[in-house]
Amino acid sequence: MYAGKSLSCQLAAEDIGQEIFALAAKIYPICRSITGNGVRDTLRELDAHIGLDIHEVPTGTPVFDWTVPREWNIRDAYIKDSRGQKIVDFASSNLHVMSYSVPVRRQISLDELKGHLHTLPDQPDLIPYRTSYYAENWGFCMAHRQFENLRDETYEVLIDSKLTDGHLTYGEYLHRGETEDEILVSAHICHPSLANDNCSGVALLTHLAKRIAGAQTRYSYRFLFAPGTIGAITWLARNEQNANRIKHGLVVSMVGDGGGPTYKKSRRGDAAIDRAMTHSLRHSGLMPTILEFSPYGYDERQYCSPGFNLPVGLFQRSKFGAIPEYHTSADNLDFIRPDHLYRSYQLIVETIDLIESDVVYRNTIPKCEPQLGKRGLYAAIGGDKHAAAANMAMLWILNLSDGSHSLLDIAERAELPFATVRSTAELLRKHGLLEPCSDLRDP
Amino acid sequence: MYAGKSLSCQLAAEDIGQEIFALAAKIYPICRSITGNGVRDTLRELDAHIGLDIHEVPTGTPVFDWTVPREWNIRDAYIKDSRGQKIVDFASSNLHVMSYSVPVRRQISLDELKGHLHTLPDQPDLIPYRTSYYAENWGFCMAHRQFENLRDETYEVLIDSKLTDGHLTYGEYLHRGETEDEILVSAHICHPSLANDNCSGVALLTHLAKRIAGAQTRYSYRFLFAPGTIGAITWLARNEQNANRIKHGLVVSMVGDGGGPTYKKSRRGDAAIDRAMTHSLRHSGLMPTILEFSPYGYDERQYCSPGFNLPVGLFQRSKFGAIPEYHTSADNLDFIRPDHLYRSYQLIVETIDLIESDVVYRNTIPKCEPQLGKRGLYAAIGGDKHAAAANMAMLWILNLSDGSHSLLDIAERAELPFATVRSTAELLRKHGLLEPCSDLRDP
Amino acid sequence: MYAGKSLSCQLAAEDIGQEIFALAAKIYPICRSITGNGVRDTLRELDAHIGLDIHEVPTGTPVFDWTVPREWNIRDAYIKDSRGQKIVDFASSNLHVMSYSVPVRRQISLDELKGHLHTLPDQPDLIPYRTSYYAENWGFCMAHRQFENLRDETYEVLIDSKLTDGHLTYGEYLHRGETEDEILVSAHICHPSLANDNCSGVALLTHLAKRIAGAQTRYSYRFLFAPGTIGAITWLARNEQNANRIKHGLVVSMVGDGGGPTYKKSRRGDAAIDRAMTHSLRHSGLMPTILEFSPYGYDERQYCSPGFNLPVGLFQRSKFGAIPEYHTSADNLDFIRPDHLYRSYQLIVETIDLIESDVVYRNTIPKCEPQLGKRGLYAAIGGDKHAAAANMAMLWILNLSDGSHSLLDIAERAELPFATVRSTAELLRKHGLLEPCSDLRDP
Repeated sequence: MYAGKSLSCQLAAEDIGQEIFALAAKIYPICRSITGNGVRDTLRELDAHIGLDIHEVPTGTPVFDWTVPREWNIRDAYIKDSRGQKIVDFASSNLHVMSYSVPVRRQISLDELKGHLHTLPDQPDLIPYRTSYYAENWGFCMAHRQFENLRDETYEVLIDSKLTDGHLTYGEYLHRGETEDEILVSAHICHPSLANDNCSGVALLTHLAKRIAGAQTRYSYRFLFAPGTIGAITWLARNEQNANRIKHGLVVSMVGDGGGPTYKKSRRGDAAIDRAMTHSLRHSGLMPTILEFSPYGYDERQYCSPGFNLPVGLFQRSKFGAIPEYHTSADNLDFIRPDHLYRSYQLIVETIDLIESDVVYRNTIPKCEPQLGKRGLYAAIGGDKHAAAANMAMLWILNLSDGSHSLLDIAERAELPFATVRSTAELLRKHGLLEPCSDLRDP
Repeated sequence: MYAGKSLSCQLAAEDIGQEIFALAAKIYPICRSITGNGVRDTLRELDAHIGLDIHEVPTGTPVFDWTVPREWNIRDAYIKDSRGQKIVDFASSNLHVMSYSVPVRRQISLDELKGHLHTLPDQPDLIPYRTSYYAENWGFCMAHRQFENLRDETYEVLIDSKLTDGHLTYGEYLHRGETEDEILVSAHICHPSLANDNCSGVALLTHLAKRIAGAQTRYSYRFLFAPGTIGAITWLARNEQNANRIKHGLVVSMVGDGGGPTYKKSRRGDAAIDRAMTHSLRHSGLMPTILEFSPYGYDERQYCSPGFNLPVGLFQRSKFGAIPEYHTSADNLDFIRPDHLYRSYQLIVETIDLIESDVVYRNTIPKCEPQLGKRGLYAAIGGDKHAAAANMAMLWILNLSDGSHSLLDIAERAELPFATVRSTAELLRKHGLLEPCSDLRDP
Repeated sequence: MYAGKSLSCQLAAEDIGQEIFALAAKIYPICRSITGNGVRDTLRELDAHIGLDIHEVPTGTPVFDWTVPREWNIRDAYIKDSRGQKIVDFASSNLHVMSYSVPVRRQISLDELKGHLHTLPDQPDLIPYRTSYYAENWGFCMAHRQFENLRDETYEVLIDSKLTDGHLTYGEYLHRGETEDEILVSAHICHPSLANDNCSGVALLTHLAKRIAGAQTRYSYRFLFAPGTIGAITWLARNEQNANRIKHGLVVSMVGDGGGPTYKKSRRGDAAIDRAMTHSLRHSGLMPTILEFSPYGYDERQYCSPGFNLPVGLFQRSKFGAIPEYHTSADNLDFIRPDHLYRSYQLIVETIDLIESDVVYRNTIPKCEPQLGKRGLYAAIGGDKHAAAANMAMLWILNLSDGSHSLLDIAERAELPFATVRSTAELLRKHGLLEPCSDLRDP
């Protein structure tokens, strides 16, 4: 049983919002994809904060139904009009190039070019984010307003990219706790200059790892920074035998905007992480959205595939796809804020703290109520109808601590914040009225 | 496992509404009761469409707590006023005579006659439908407006009926499917000239049987045309040992009006037929009413008696008793329409098709998602927030096909129409991503 | 199985409201506390109606985590102003003295006196009720309006009380039924002049006991009149081995006002008493409040402690603490009324009657419906859509009496009053259509 200083206290950090923002801003300009130097450059920035294990998995490695793809790197790309003017330039935004575009350098008519252009007619000033990882293709993304003004002439297109055998790169950080049971926290690292999705999540988890490194915990914590889908699949393929060590997990993305918070439950629907996160969000004072599992989203899709069915949920502020900035150039550094990052950090910390400390106690005096007054635990003057409310947490804990209710069970039944129930239980334990159960709830 | 052409396709029929209406119109004039030549004449009309097994059960045969009653036949009936004018005439509507009236021929005062007259004061222009099967009595039914104008004079009443030892008659049609497991569909055949209740149901099931005769099905289908209550009891008494072959069942009545649709669940409440019909109706685009079981209604009362507790529900358009035309002369051929009969036919066919094809698959690649793109099953360009929705059926089926969820389970969890889930599953199966489970859900 | 005259009939009493009120009025003036002569005097009044077993438990007796306290008795108390005028006088209201005040006789400044005065600033005309059972202290309670006008002078305070080794007193009455299974009904007897809380409950249970004494019952009934908390704890400590005889229980308090009715469920939440009381209140025509268990309230706290977890709920009219009169001098004889006491008595009687008669029957003709008509149990003329409703109770009972549904289960599923279901079941039993099950639902 965990009985030291609460994890929330250990991980508290006044300026954490600023620190996360600074790291997000630093990695924002890098052109990431599912493979290549963009991922490596990003992991190097994280490694400056926490000693990462960086893994390189060769192109062609089979990972379940998939194969590690060729490595993609890009140096330059543009579209020039007939006067030699660059009208679209990779250097000004890496979103301009569809990710995994094959190399191209040629003259091209407007008509043919249009087949390679992606825009957002409903958001004419924004550049969309597009990928073509598994079908050979090339393309540019641009503002629809600019697209509409293209003259019917011959253009020069250049994509100076390389698709070659190489590696898929991901980073891991493991904090060892008292047990080998793991809490997995994972962020996708494959999106280019999108600040919220997911520079925010990558930066938040890096700073969480940095602080957890110095903390005493019951669980071990595994931080995974990997490209979306293929990265999670690769990790699961290489760690298939140990996946059952994961007792709780969170995928973290889009944690810098002011929406939500949003939690999407694991496929199990009633896993401890589902109940813990739901409790934290409901007592946050914010207006949370709790979603049932669905098989569309981020890497929880892989963790929750039927052959693994791990208890892994998704934490976000705004729900993916539900905001206009999603997967556009509007998801920039103006869209995320230190105070939102701070609040997201807090909510995650509260939730893992809850899981760390959700133990089952047994009332040592189960027959009739213990006399709280003689222990100084109860208002001395009776009859006042208001005094009693203050004692409700004590009464609920004593009444339900029969070996089959955890502190979270009690908090939910009593409709009290977990922190109140935990601190009250600690008080009762100090007075000998509670003892930890040997048959601790298995996570 | 059933894997041929879907039953809906096999049973599709453009003009089925017209055909059902034509048969209903043909049997509408016949004076049916729970026994007698009216039932025989009706079954003869059905037999012209499908080869019926017609059973004759002798008067006096004990059937559980009941006894097959004497046979009732009627040739003529009237009330004449003092001037010899027929003021009520069986020839103009067989509803005028209370069913099972004993013979009578006499002069009678208005006062005494009134004790034998049934009217509807709240619907003064309509003739009610009344019966007295198990208590010896006689009576006439008439419009209340006419009743109020009856002069205080002596009347001549004639009921030229016979109550004699004879038989109870019912018809059966059995379509043999791949297994001996049966789906029972049953319609009561004892009501006289009431078009919706139940010429509509009798005619619909006859045409359904006609089409199912040529179809390949997993289940065997038993069509039962029998008088209400005593007919179902008689059938159950004679088939007590085989009743457990019935895996699903529907009582069908009042399917020609534009109300509902209405489904009343079986006593079990969560039988496959209950879930299947609920799903079909909820995705029908109509405004269905789903009722919990209650022990009042049609022959589901007998099928759902505690000693049988068969999974048999009741399908109707408007709920019995809930419309003003119910059990009155207003339930005539103007009250039912081919398009409503067509829609009712469709809903029943969709439901049995669902039951035929609600199998359990197992995802052959359960660890992480299979790579749909390399199989041409997935949009090639990533990042678009709209594209994914189209793939939800695939993702749900793959995620939940772990051997414990049937296609209907998946459709309900995913909130998708069963037809979408089934056709998508078929596609995935063709690509080798699903295999049928040996442990098919037992019905 | 209980099959005699229904308990409601046996216990019916036209003037019971008046009788309960008269007894409540008689015991209202007595100064009760958790020990002492006030309790004895009160029990003597009850003993005049029913032969009570009165128990005296010595001071110092350990009872679980508690110890029986010293006995408190008081003869006089007052506050005199500098002119010798009694401005607060125990003789005019025993609420003026905080219960268990230690003896005091001295001159005291206003400033110091204020530390011993209790008032209700929000209800300035009322005297509050206060206690200090387990912390040595003394105090007076008074109207806040008077408190505000106290002059800054020297007062004389007298509390002529004694705190001495003695006894804790409680009374019990046991009515023996056909079995040793018990229904516990208990009322706290420790509050001084508070009419509703709990002269009303004490008086109601006394008159209930008086009538039950002459009744034939399946269960034995244990009536307990004991001081709150310490009395229930003492009783449980002395009856620990037999507590499991209690199959159902009710704590009764505040039953003379016109609010509620209110029922707070036992810790189990689905005990028979919970379902029975919920049913009675929902069919009462009043606007009941059904509360989930919470560990704050009256002596159900002790009965429902985890080491006992007895099926004991709390019955009240207004909920404790929820009305302005609660624990003030406004809870006087004007606040309770014979008609409310009558209705409370009725509701309790209906509930225990329900528990007495909630048996499980088995339909003797489970296959198809029995023919009710030939037994004269069914309307003879068919077809009328209204007639059937009258027969619904019969149909529900026959349909659900399969050995696994009690009469209450049936009443709840059919949404019918228990009394209708019970009397209809009796009718069916007389006709041989039901037989009692050997596997009666265990309480």
